[in-house]
Amino acid sequence: MPDQKALDAVIALARHRGFVFQAGEIYGGSRSAWDYGPLGTELKENIRRQWWQTFVRGRADMVGLDSSVILPKRVWEASGHVGVFTDPLVECLHCHKRFREDHLIEAYEEKKGRTPENGMGDIVCPNCGTRGEWTPPRDFNMMLETYLGPVKDESGLNYLRPETAQGIFVNFANVVQAARMKPPFGIGQIGKAFRNEITPGNFIFRTREFEQMEIEYFVPAADAKEWFDHWVEECWNWFVDLGIDPAHMRKFDVPESERAHYSDGTIDIEYEFGFAGKGWGELMGVANRTDFDLTNHTEASGQNLAFFDQASNERYLPYVIEPSFGLTRSMMAFLVDAYHQEEVPNAKGGTDTRTVLKLDPRLSPVKVAVLPLSRNERLSPVARQLADDLRKHRNVEFDDSGAIGRRYRRQDEIGTPYCVTVDFDSLDDNAVTVRDRDSMGQERIAIDALDAYLTERLKER
Amino acid sequence: MPDQKALDAVIALARHRGFVFQAGEIYGGSRSAWDYGPLGTELKENIRRQWWQTFVRGRADMVGLDSSVILPKRVWEASGHVGVFTDPLVECLHCHKRFREDHLIEAYEEKKGRTPENGMGDIVCPNCGTRGEWTPPRDFNMMLETYLGPVKDESGLNYLRPETAQGIFVNFANVVQAARMKPPFGIGQIGKAFRNEITPGNFIFRTREFEQMEIEYFVPAADAKEWFDHWVEECWNWFVDLGIDPAHMRKFDVPESERAHYSDGTIDIEYEFGFAGKGWGELMGVANRTDFDLTNHTEASGQNLAFFDQASNERYLPYVIEPSFGLTRSMMAFLVDAYHQEEVPNAKGGTDTRTVLKLDPRLSPVKVAVLPLSRNERLSPVARQLADDLRKHRNVEFDDSGAIGRRYRRQDEIGTPYCVTVDFDSLDDNAVTVRDRDSMGQERIAIDALDAYLTERLKER
Repeated sequence: MPDQKALDAVIALARHRGFVFQAGEIYGGSRSAWDYGPLGTELKENIRRQWWQTFVRGRADMVGLDSSVILPKRVWEASGHVGVFTDPLVECLHCHKRFREDHLIEAYEEKKGRTPENGMGDIVCPNCGTRGEWTPPRDFNMMLETYLGPVKDESGLNYLRPETAQGIFVNFANVVQAARMKPPFGIGQIGKAFRNEITPGNFIFRTREFEQMEIEYFVPAADAKEWFDHWVEECWNWFVDLGIDPAHMRKFDVPESERAHYSDGTIDIEYEFGFAGKGWGELMGVANRTDFDLTNHTEASGQNLAFFDQASNERYLPYVIEPSFGLTRSMMAFLVDAYHQEEVPNAKGGTDTRTVLKLDPRLSPVKVAVLPLSRNERLSPVARQLADDLRKHRNVEFDDSGAIGRRYRRQDEIGTPYCVTVDFDSLDDNAVTVRDRDSMGQERIAIDALDAYLTERLKER
Repeated sequence: MPDQKALDAVIALARHRGFVFQAGEIYGGSRSAWDYGPLGTELKENIRRQWWQTFVRGRADMVGLDSSVILPKRVWEASGHVGVFTDPLVECLHCHKRFREDHLIEAYEEKKGRTPENGMGDIVCPNCGTRGEWTPPRDFNMMLETYLGPVKDESGLNYLRPETAQGIFVNFANVVQAARMKPPFGIGQIGKAFRNEITPGNFIFRTREFEQMEIEYFVPAADAKEWFDHWVEECWNWFVDLGIDPAHMRKFDVPESERAHYSDGTIDIEYEFGFAGKGWGELMGVANRTDFDLTNHTEASGQNLAFFDQASNERYLPYVIEPSFGLTRSMMAFLVDAYHQEEVPNAKGGTDTRTVLKLDPRLSPVKVAVLPLSRNERLSPVARQLADDLRKHRNVEFDDSGAIGRRYRRQDEIGTPYCVTVDFDSLDDNAVTVRDRDSMGQERIAIDALDAYLTERLKER
């Protein structure tokens, strides 16, 4: 079972090998954002493409959208975010550090196994140790503000979106008309969102800047329950199909008091990240947003957003089922789930520990590593040419530095499914040795047949 | 030659068919941002993937990165953006509308064919018509501000990036170490950037929120000129390979007075969009940023960002050649260049005008349209099943509404390379008619052979 120690090992690997860097590290770094290095960018891109193919291109009832990050205040007033998208903020009277009240209480409950009898009077400041000296909680709005235009006044006040969803709702009527869609149908979007988290943390799990993959699925109210169940299942299956062990996931029926302001019912899919204290964290949620958003935007904009159903000759505001994924959270789960340490036999008759990321090949950042057996003027040009050829269709690494066993381990560690070794026999037989990451088995394959061999096993088609 | 009228026709098509919507249209819309509808999102995604394959995955000397949009003030002080990333802002003393001084002068010069003799004294306010009553110009910083954290003070002041480049520079040392790269090598990134343009305009050409595809290519100073030329050529070729007519592009050697503060030499690739007045607009630019950025970040951060070359045993700050593409501008150019109106013979012996987007099939938002000859209970299920099968590998539309000729025209208009018609013979011969967008020729293809037929012609591999 993953625990904080296992999680720390994954994080260390991710930082060391360049999946993830701390944002602004040379300036002291930041807890609120992370940058994705070469391997992380490829992994994230692969997750993104799988999601887009499964849920948008691959479905007749879905289309895509890519809307603006910055939207004017009016949109966020209508959506309810200006009023109620807040966290309870408390400040220690002694050291003036600020915290989320609900997080402090949760941490107390997890540690002590009971609720604090005297409320915040029992809570010790995690920064300075003072007990029970807190300001009353105030509502802290989580949206980031910015001003557009040459004058910095109310007319230019805009917000960075805290969810991509609103961009979909305000374009609902446009999409219905231009793409001739009718319920049940959905709109998918992938993009950045921003929340001014009071306490970001847990690596890339809670950050102020993050990426979402969201679907707003529009249905007649009477069918909402059925589609809600459909989407919970589809989302669960997506993670399982891409390799997450279902034993590490669970569904959480979010109680009314913890739901977002727009939701009439939410089921979260959680993953067992292994965080200290509460080990589980939300991967994605499916919410029944009812007609809350379309009703609000209809009223605030004065536009009629109702859908006209030609078959029944009726006009109605559809209900919305929203599967909302965290892209960066999903990436973290794929990394944690793929991380294995195994004892494998070594040449001396003993065993070595190998670290291997057993990522689904569709997600692996590097698909193939091409390795000349040694750094040699006859082998290297052949191997480089082979790498260039294979690179036309996929991400390929060329590595000629160090012992071959060590190079295999480096590729195992980043989840490369296949290593292709060019040796002196290759110069005669035009074949190479292909090593499988998981079985560590080796097979001799003709260079002519290699691309097709890899295409099939990497599930490129 | 494209002119404003031709351009307006493309924009009308793009808006009507859902490539692009005005952001926040139901709230009156905005000139500063646009949303990408179902077809625009697919087109943009296809451009993105082509760029990533050509310049990042497809090259042994490139890796990818995905860094944060929001970076603290210190980064932008070091990069010079806080100080000099400004536009000259003037305000009409009569109506108080604000404009960019250089844009007003440019517009005057284009209209009159000469510079204004009395400077701003000759310039008429485009809003109220008052002549020559302007405030002195002031430097208006184009970066958008936002505050992170629970306190809105100087310590929380951050800027939304006006270019993705800085995220690459601050991660330079991390990438060198984690990905074991050495010059000459480059880092590519695709992502949003934000500029508080005083006068956004020309559809998606100049917006406050836009997408960039940037490369920072690190080389020894002595090789900078050679690599500069390499990149100008590679970038030019990329557009040509994806279908832009080279007669509609030109190179512009940007004079020193017009270059960005970091550039020691810039060549822009311009496209003839057909804007009223000046018909040309910048598609992308290649700049020689020298060691300006790495020097500044070394000084400001106190970290040693110099590269240690093991071969020569020397430590040096590489020069940077920067090819910087506008993704959204590229999309606009691909649309304009693909737009054709043709006279084609009709059934009555006369001709009809057809509008066709002759997009490279790799860019087309819809790859295949599956059309049952008529809406019929025997044809529709077969056609739907075929669409579902083809959809596993590409974006497919199913359309059974209206006359077949009209459905062909609808697909021509959005650049769909192939229409597949299922007719009553299909039920017997298990074959379909495939119509080619450009030649309008038709071919009978066995359903079994269809996927391979399309894969080859759509250049999917």
